[in-house]
Amino acid sequence: MQLNVYLSGEIHSNWRDAIAEGVKAAGLDVTLTGPNTNHGASDDCGDDILGAEASNFWKDHKAAKINALRTRKLIGDADIVVVRFGDQYKQWNAAFDAGYAAALGKSLIVQHDPSLTHPLKEVDAAALAVCETPQQVVDILSYIHRDQ
Amino acid sequence: MQLNVYLSGEIHSNWRDAIAEGVKAAGLDVTLTGPNTNHGASDDCGDDILGAEASNFWKDHKAAKINALRTRKLIGDADIVVVRFGDQYKQWNAAFDAGYAAALGKSLIVQHDPSLTHPLKEVDAAALAVCETPQQVVDILSYIHRDQ
Amino acid sequence: MQLNVYLSGEIHSNWRDAIAEGVKAAGLDVTLTGPNTNHGASDDCGDDILGAEASNFWKDHKAAKINALRTRKLIGDADIVVVRFGDQYKQWNAAFDAGYAAALGKSLIVQHDPSLTHPLKEVDAAALAVCETPQQVVDILSYIHRDQ
Amino acid sequence: MQLNVYLSGEIHSNWRDAIAEGVKAAGLDVTLTGPNTNHGASDDCGDDILGAEASNFWKDHKAAKINALRTRKLIGDADIVVVRFGDQYKQWNAAFDAGYAAALGKSLIVQHDPSLTHPLKEVDAAALAVCETPQQVVDILSYIHRDQ
Amino acid sequence: MQLNVYLSGEIHSNWRDAIAEGVKAAGLDVTLTGPNTNHGASDDCGDDILGAEASNFWKDHKAAKINALRTRKLIGDADIVVVRFGDQYKQWNAAFDAGYAAALGKSLIVQHDPSLTHPLKEVDAAALAVCETPQQVVDILSYIHRDQ
Amino acid sequence: MQLNVYLSGEIHSNWRDAIAEGVKAAGLDVTLTGPNTNHGASDDCGDDILGAEASNFWKDHKAAKINALRTRKLIGDADIVVVRFGDQYKQWNAAFDAGYAAALGKSLIVQHDPSLTHPLKEVDAAALAVCETPQQVVDILSYIHRDQ
Amino acid sequence: MQLNVYLSGEIHSNWRDAIAEGVKAAGLDVTLTGPNTNHGASDDCGDDILGAEASNFWKDHKAAKINALRTRKLIGDADIVVVRFGDQYKQWNAAFDAGYAAALGKSLIVQHDPSLTHPLKEVDAAALAVCETPQQVVDILSYIHRDQ
Amino acid sequence: MQLNVYLSGEIHSNWRDAIAEGVKAAGLDVTLTGPNTNHGASDDCGDDILGAEASNFWKDHKAAKINALRTRKLIGDADIVVVRFGDQYKQWNAAFDAGYAAALGKSLIVQHDPSLTHPLKEVDAAALAVCETPQQVVDILSYIHRDQ
Repeated sequence: MQLNVYLSGEIHSNWRDAIAEGVKAAGLDVTLTGPNTNHGASDDCGDDILGAEASNFWKDHKAAKINALRTRKLIGDADIVVVRFGDQYKQWNAAFDAGYAAALGKSLIVQHDPSLTHPLKEVDAAALAVCETPQQVVDILSYIHRDQ
Repeated sequence: MQLNVYLSGEIHSNWRDAIAEGVKAAGLDVTLTGPNTNHGASDDCGDDILGAEASNFWKDHKAAKINALRTRKLIGDADIVVVRFGDQYKQWNAAFDAGYAAALGKSLIVQHDPSLTHPLKEVDAAALAVCETPQQVVDILSYIHRDQ
Repeated sequence: MQLNVYLSGEIHSNWRDAIAEGVKAAGLDVTLTGPNTNHGASDDCGDDILGAEASNFWKDHKAAKINALRTRKLIGDADIVVVRFGDQYKQWNAAFDAGYAAALGKSLIVQHDPSLTHPLKEVDAAALAVCETPQQVVDILSYIHRDQ
Repeated sequence: MQLNVYLSGEIHSNWRDAIAEGVKAAGLDVTLTGPNTNHGASDDCGDDILGAEASNFWKDHKAAKINALRTRKLIGDADIVVVRFGDQYKQWNAAFDAGYAAALGKSLIVQHDPSLTHPLKEVDAAALAVCETPQQVVDILSYIHRDQ
Repeated sequence: MQLNVYLSGEIHSNWRDAIAEGVKAAGLDVTLTGPNTNHGASDDCGDDILGAEASNFWKDHKAAKINALRTRKLIGDADIVVVRFGDQYKQWNAAFDAGYAAALGKSLIVQHDPSLTHPLKEVDAAALAVCETPQQVVDILSYIHRDQ
Repeated sequence: MQLNVYLSGEIHSNWRDAIAEGVKAAGLDVTLTGPNTNHGASDDCGDDILGAEASNFWKDHKAAKINALRTRKLIGDADIVVVRFGDQYKQWNAAFDAGYAAALGKSLIVQHDPSLTHPLKEVDAAALAVCETPQQVVDILSYIHRDQ
Repeated sequence: MQLNVYLSGEIHSNWRDAIAEGVKAAGLDVTLTGPNTNHGASDDCGDDILGAEASNFWKDHKAAKINALRTRKLIGDADIVVVRFGDQYKQWNAAFDAGYAAALGKSLIVQHDPSLTHPLKEVDAAALAVCETPQQVVDILSYIHRDQ
Repeated sequence: MQLNVYLSGEIHSNWRDAIAEGVKAAGLDVTLTGPNTNHGASDDCGDDILGAEASNFWKDHKAAKINALRTRKLIGDADIVVVRFGDQYKQWNAAFDAGYAAALGKSLIVQHDPSLTHPLKEVDAAALAVCETPQQVVDILSYIHRDQ
């Protein structure tokens, strides 16, 4: 079984590396993808490529749409979407990705600290697994690959 | 033109009433729907109906799924989904609804204070209109109904 | 909110009547549908209408397909599919309906005695609610209709 | 013609091996997949990976959903779903898979002893072939590969 | 249960009337639709409305497309498509409608004389019922409406 | 047969009135819809409702998206989309609507002067009818409603 | 551009070979597929594999469904479906394939003698090209591969 | 990330070459496709392959449909559709492609001179990026491929 797994959410910690290392150590046939994690480039790509905007709204708008070119392609190709919520920022884009993936019929894994259970209950309810650690995500990916 | 409009998001202010009154005053053929806005009932419905859980996770899980029975039906029937973000709470369910509606191909209107523009840029980028006030939502619904 | 609810499964007890009475008592705008519950007619309809078969396989085959004309229409029109498992018979058609409804994206409610939890775990996992009694099904339908 | 074939159902006999050997002997370009057939691991994966539950319901629930991550991927990728019913256990998950596959438009082959014809009539009615032995499944896969 | 039933195929006998009378006599909530059964108008509508063509190919082409405006709408709205094959003409449009309906997931009933079984085997194989007479079609529609 | 027909394209001549009158005179059960035909309001709705933009690009962008709320709803509900091309303006929105409708599987009727045949050949190729006059559109709608 | 092309219809002449040779001579990146062209095996596969039937109807039924396992897979994978009508047999399966492919949104090429234009007008109307010879099919496949 | 990008629109300037060179220089894993850019062959292919027509309408019609065999395949396989509008010709086929791609859920990039902003506002509103130069298209493709 070959799996495409999109890693959505928090871009300020090394959780994607932890999953990548776990997947590699387990020898799984998993392709991991995700958003551009360079925060500055992600915010500025619209102005940088298409020209500077006078208002922040349109600067953000152009950038968000260019990033959507990447996100939609990779979520569209994913078998499983993993969404991690951290303890900083609003992270509405992560919840948006979760809703988007759910409506496409993608299998969803959510990963967050138990302290976030209540505000994330609607997101968790749409998931096939709710993990507390990246290692649990790796363990699930390993489990569903096992032959016996 | 008859329109079904689902009003997602904030349940602690009277913004739904403002839109309902504006729609009524304008005489529009619009059916407004939304989630259960009774916060306590929404949190407790799983335990109340199906029996009490020992853990908060499963209490929330059962409640969120029962609420999803309503939400999925009404978003599925909607022509337009309006999502409002306020200044309180995490509101990940609102962003989840926005992503869910976008992936279903529903037309999206987002309504929030300009101070939230940056964290909502991915949600706004998926919308056909970004409003600052409920009145602007009413004005758009009125405009798209006009004969000339 | 108007709901179409298909009641799949057990045809030997009066659980459909219990739900119909509960829905009526609560004044809900719910249309209840279900399979033909006349066991003999359901088994014999193929031979009765199209002519007798020499083998039981083809007799069953013709009957099952004629019944599928009804089932597919009503499940296709349903917002929610309720599947009840009782303590008799194989009930593979009920589990088939549950899988069929799940793949169509229909919201699923399963109702069964807790003693069946383990063999029904895959079916329950696809449901938005798992009830023990018909009354709980009614309570859920009532809850998702409430205005406040 | 390359075919992906998912083998659903009974995990206590060696029928999957029989099909695998037949496919190999016939030199067919067929990729066979299936559920995790380790009964213990399949039951315990939720508690093992995500932590022990106090109730059997939630233990089963977590396990069933993790197994669904695998099942949905493999059924989604399958051209043909073969479902076998044996003479033990409730096997509602097999019937659920059959309904799920049918609603996705997958071609269905059912394999069971003729003694099960009556309770399986609705499942058989959705199939393109009803076999009595694993060898017949192999013969069909061979036949549809033939050049002349 | 309200049903939309499209009656495709033979336009030279009164089989549609027989079904219409049977449906009326049984008091069924069935809306019957079908193609334009005026052979001359059906052949000439392209030239009559859009101007005469010099070649028969384009005359037929324009007419067939205008008729398709009707056929696609009515098959698209149908719950069940009944296709009758008679003993005259090529009737490739009837077989085309059957394939079209099958791929849309419409329930299919085929009606023809047993002498046509062999050349119609692929069409029959896609149907939920194969009838020999219009009365059998009526009997099936009556059966799937029965309350008990 | 009840038909929803969306009239896309040229907003500077009275062709929609001609079709409306013809449909009324023929007593057809046809609901005609179309875009907002008030050119000024259509251009200014974004600035008027959501606030003035400094750049023409964003002014046009906001207006086009608000108009899309109407267009997508009405094309989505249409059985047939009629697109008329006149002799003025670029009319890229009309060709966009034609492509959009074609990809949704809507039946397409194109109406234009024969002098535009060559540049419209790709649009015409996707249509079920190519008319030269509004009266021909009415004649087609009348024809597909006839009983005999 | 790599193309999968399914060749449906007549199995008694060598038209598939003519296309295969033309495609090979032109060096096109085209994979040609088709039904089992061994008439006897195609008719008998149900009885041969699953056991003899007493009635011709069920013999044909089982065979047609086993052949459908192949046909649905290959049409589902095709970019273009070519359907040829010859001068013998009823060929309803060819017309069924054409309708099936059309409803799936597959591009359709029909090939037949001009003498069959009138009875095939509905099938031709759904096609992107109507050819008189297999060589014209090859010429079209060559044309759509050209770089300039 | 591997991307399929279809380049629609203007065939009289070298903009496709500019993008191809930019993509190659940046070492991106992008497959570029597009329509047949030989204007004469594109216009004449219907008559050349299938025989000469007496009327220009049918000559154009046959050619447009043969070209659609290519266009639909390549747009269907594309992740991103880039549509360029130049300063010559009607270019309704480009706008048609944009609408077609949008309705299929393809990500859209539009490229044109700012002088065309107003007549292209509906097309631009459906795009994830509006570029003024081919180099900006390359910059976006490069950006969405970056690792960090």
